[in-house]
Amino acid sequence: MSIEIVFLGTSAGLPTEERNVSSVIVRRESEIFMFDVGEGTQKQLIKANIGIKQKLTIFISHLHGDHIFGLLGLIQSYNLIGRKIPLEIFGPKDLKKFIYENMKILNINLTYPLIIRNSKQGIITEGKNYTIKAIESDHRIESYSYCIEEKLRPGKFNPEKANKLEIPIKFWKTLKSGFPVTINKKNIDASLIVSPPRKGRKIVYSGDTKPTERMMTFAKNADILIHEATYDEKMRARADKYFHSTARQAAEIAKKANVQLLVLTHMSPRYKDPSILYKEAYEIFKNVMIAEDLLKINVNLSKD
Amino acid sequence: MSIEIVFLGTSAGLPTEERNVSSVIVRRESEIFMFDVGEGTQKQLIKANIGIKQKLTIFISHLHGDHIFGLLGLIQSYNLIGRKIPLEIFGPKDLKKFIYENMKILNINLTYPLIIRNSKQGIITEGKNYTIKAIESDHRIESYSYCIEEKLRPGKFNPEKANKLEIPIKFWKTLKSGFPVTINKKNIDASLIVSPPRKGRKIVYSGDTKPTERMMTFAKNADILIHEATYDEKMRARADKYFHSTARQAAEIAKKANVQLLVLTHMSPRYKDPSILYKEAYEIFKNVMIAEDLLKINVNLSKD
Repeated sequence: MSIEIVFLGTSAGLPTEERNVSSVIVRRESEIFMFDVGEGTQKQLIKANIGIKQKLTIFISHLHGDHIFGLLGLIQSYNLIGRKIPLEIFGPKDLKKFIYENMKILNINLTYPLIIRNSKQGIITEGKNYTIKAIESDHRIESYSYCIEEKLRPGKFNPEKANKLEIPIKFWKTLKSGFPVTINKKNIDASLIVSPPRKGRKIVYSGDTKPTERMMTFAKNADILIHEATYDEKMRARADKYFHSTARQAAEIAKKANVQLLVLTHMSPRYKDPSILYKEAYEIFKNVMIAEDLLKINVNLSKD
Repeated sequence: MSIEIVFLGTSAGLPTEERNVSSVIVRRESEIFMFDVGEGTQKQLIKANIGIKQKLTIFISHLHGDHIFGLLGLIQSYNLIGRKIPLEIFGPKDLKKFIYENMKILNINLTYPLIIRNSKQGIITEGKNYTIKAIESDHRIESYSYCIEEKLRPGKFNPEKANKLEIPIKFWKTLKSGFPVTINKKNIDASLIVSPPRKGRKIVYSGDTKPTERMMTFAKNADILIHEATYDEKMRARADKYFHSTARQAAEIAKKANVQLLVLTHMSPRYKDPSILYKEAYEIFKNVMIAEDLLKINVNLSKD
């Protein structure tokens, strides 16, 4: 099944007429993973026609307004529609304080369990077929980059080989799962008919950050690297001062990490036309694109 | 000069594809008065092409999320663009706590003075030519309705009468200001040539509220009454339970208050087509309209 990435907000700091502030979601099977929740995210969800009733896990990169000011509205809207299933949110240490203090001041009582967890480097949560990892990014305050990576999938079963070896169909399922079978006292190893386990998909979200060595390892061989590109090269000193990346720096990381596709986001509102960012990144790394609000990207499973 | 009213958000509780949550502004000369700041208000300002650098005063009706979750983003955005002139915000007692606690948790230092004041019944602020008044509305928690009312304007000068009475032009200015003049030892009272002082414009914003007697007095003879109309008559019990008004109740108030124009806003998201609300209000009061996001209404000075 396809994984769908939907960009809900792609502007840094301030919204523009075309771009909302940061938020991007990854839809995988019946689950939604949301990375950052800038102001207006719930409205963007409506525009993208994404229901908010399904299982949702939120990952906050850091506690700057343009990454979190949509969170209180989302929490409250879930309340208004009478959500029952839990909502889990990961983020920096002070996220709990931000949410709980506001709930206290505004006297918000939830209809559903809200679970807030501290992010840390390493695996922070996992599902049946995926893990979510975090690393610290480099952005003045406590901040994280996140990665969703699918677990290894079973190798591909080769029915022709199975027929050639005259393996009865009733044994196929066992072999498909990677286990050996015994037929007429002869052991048949799965590897004879099934290719080696296949890599799942890997999607990385940088949040706000200076370029780091850590990110190159973290994003290694990712299918998609969603990386901030707040500035162009002329603004490099400013990028450095405010702990952001230029488009070129993001491209250098993508190249060294050998990712399939680099998607630049979190562009400063000064770039009404972001082609300078595209150009500077493209010089370093060809598989690059600039995110737009409501852009959808499908990440398919490799066939082999 | 015309006063311009711009509706930035007209939906109750949750945003919809067409409607943002509550906010409406009144532009008068070089000042902006903003009533409530729902999530996404700064984006709506951009869409309405309204600069946010001019003098702005904000009035919060009550501390429910759909009326205030755009406030932190607006405060922070002013910071990012380096605002220097003060921002004044009026609202219920806990508004200070809401803003200051968030600034503390998120470590926000402002580039401009932020003045937060408690609303109370009566005149809460005034400018050279207007006053802003508040009354308590009836909505479970501390909450206010607001009124902006221009001070009396000098009466209309009648040049034909002045000529008939052979009053030299040099005396006209004094008479226009309402003062008497003495010509050939004869006192000429201004009222002979100048009509009585004229009423300024009056605009009332209800915020969320049950219909109240207080509002009828407060909105008396207003040019525009912006009143919430969360529900239709079939939902009257629900309106009552949650301290809201039906469209018909809003119309009854408009009629008794003898307003020029009633504008209904804060419609429940269940009304994709709000014509039932229009119909029920129209049966009671003909001069009614339903607000839409980005609707602009000009309120002109009367000519007489």
